[in-house]
Amino acid sequence: MSDLVPRLPAHAETTIHRFLRAHALTGGGEGIAVGLSGGIDSALVARLARDALGPGHVLGVLLPDGQFPKELLTETEEYARALGVASRTISIAPLLDAFRAELPEVADRVALGNVAARMRMIVLYAVARERRLLVCGTGNKSELLLGYFTKYGDGGVDLLPLGDLYKTEVRALARALDLPSAVRERPPTAGLWEGQTDEEELGISYADVDQILHGVEQVRTPEEIAAVTGFPLPRVREIVARVDRYRHKRRPPPIPKVGLRTIGLDWRD
Amino acid sequence: MSDLVPRLPAHAETTIHRFLRAHALTGGGEGIAVGLSGGIDSALVARLARDALGPGHVLGVLLPDGQFPKELLTETEEYARALGVASRTISIAPLLDAFRAELPEVADRVALGNVAARMRMIVLYAVARERRLLVCGTGNKSELLLGYFTKYGDGGVDLLPLGDLYKTEVRALARALDLPSAVRERPPTAGLWEGQTDEEELGISYADVDQILHGVEQVRTPEEIAAVTGFPLPRVREIVARVDRYRHKRRPPPIPKVGLRTIGLDWRD
Repeated sequence: MSDLVPRLPAHAETTIHRFLRAHALTGGGEGIAVGLSGGIDSALVARLARDALGPGHVLGVLLPDGQFPKELLTETEEYARALGVASRTISIAPLLDAFRAELPEVADRVALGNVAARMRMIVLYAVARERRLLVCGTGNKSELLLGYFTKYGDGGVDLLPLGDLYKTEVRALARALDLPSAVRERPPTAGLWEGQTDEEELGISYADVDQILHGVEQVRTPEEIAAVTGFPLPRVREIVARVDRYRHKRRPPPIPKVGLRTIGLDWRD
Repeated sequence: MSDLVPRLPAHAETTIHRFLRAHALTGGGEGIAVGLSGGIDSALVARLARDALGPGHVLGVLLPDGQFPKELLTETEEYARALGVASRTISIAPLLDAFRAELPEVADRVALGNVAARMRMIVLYAVARERRLLVCGTGNKSELLLGYFTKYGDGGVDLLPLGDLYKTEVRALARALDLPSAVRERPPTAGLWEGQTDEEELGISYADVDQILHGVEQVRTPEEIAAVTGFPLPRVREIVARVDRYRHKRRPPPIPKVGLRTIGLDWRD
């Protein structure tokens, strides 16, 4: 095993608990809302939030489209019930239908996947606002670095408690917290279209890509990363280029410098 | 006139042109899409983008809801035509109807205003993607500092060319570029509900609030700002507190520090 395999730090759980308490119960906030997809990331967020804030301060929101499997819906509602947190199921299918009727020419699956992710954001914020909850994202460090999320869709959230954990570490923490094996073993999917899986679309497994990303984090050169991991250099370069390409998804929109102090650049904030 | 009245720097127009060229015509991008509301900010963005990129690289998108005045729609389409840029009108009314049918309990006007702003974002991104355009926001420095925009709605954009100009400076630049007086003199409105105007909702005019914000930019104390401008100290403090309160709208979602380098904090990006 290469020394670039990410290892979950012992303090991860405690740090995330403290982070959630510091952000979600201040300024009149009543807790967090999280979109539950049936996947490991959102299940872990719900569990960590329940442990950190108490079950009364967590709302799980299921946001199925028309293709979402019925059994997974039931299983996910049961997961929330077992955690002791309230859940709510709101179909986004009518919103997608309205969009398709208005813009029938938008037909490619990535474009429609982005629309679905953004419709979920809209519903989640509307539900969260009613109950004075913050919207909690489920993005992890691998997804954020690869830009593998929809800008202002699943990326449109108030907090990212898993944002400093690679998928490898998410899996380790889910195992340590004894999350149901059905949740832990389900193939990761952004649910952008039917049958889609992350690892097929990315063309690499999280176990592999996490080592490359971890090498970038340590400011190793592509050559070193290739040597340590045994992955071909072009593959490593491709991932490094992808991290650069999606930098804009991890930053606020750029602003040209005109005044004395500029937001996002040198405004004291 | 207090020395805190923002003054448009002579280089503003050139700087914004360079910024637009640097961002919008690189990496296979074909230009920008901007939502045209009939207001001064979006009219100015369209004009600056046309001048910087050429008319063939700008798409104006009108996104009326059911209440949008017909005459303003016609006037705005004519404005785009006079600029020589393509425009497209897409009603968001069916999307809002679908949302209201799905979540009838979300009834307060701010919540529904946010939904409308976010639906516009979805449509704008879908249209922009088809033509390989970046989504250009129209937010100015006053709005950004006051948090006077919808997170992931009109705030959900790729570029903010006016983000370092106070509303006062936007008006000065629009005057310098000879934008139509109908556009320049229309009362600013976020269009969140019928008859809404920014200045009434904020409880202060942009001419006044800009002086306070400009004082904050110069790291002046509330007491100094009150003394220089003649505004009551509690009013100044209120604006300063508002700038702090909406800081989260100007930043990427926070992430708890777990690993060696954390996105948005000390990741080299």
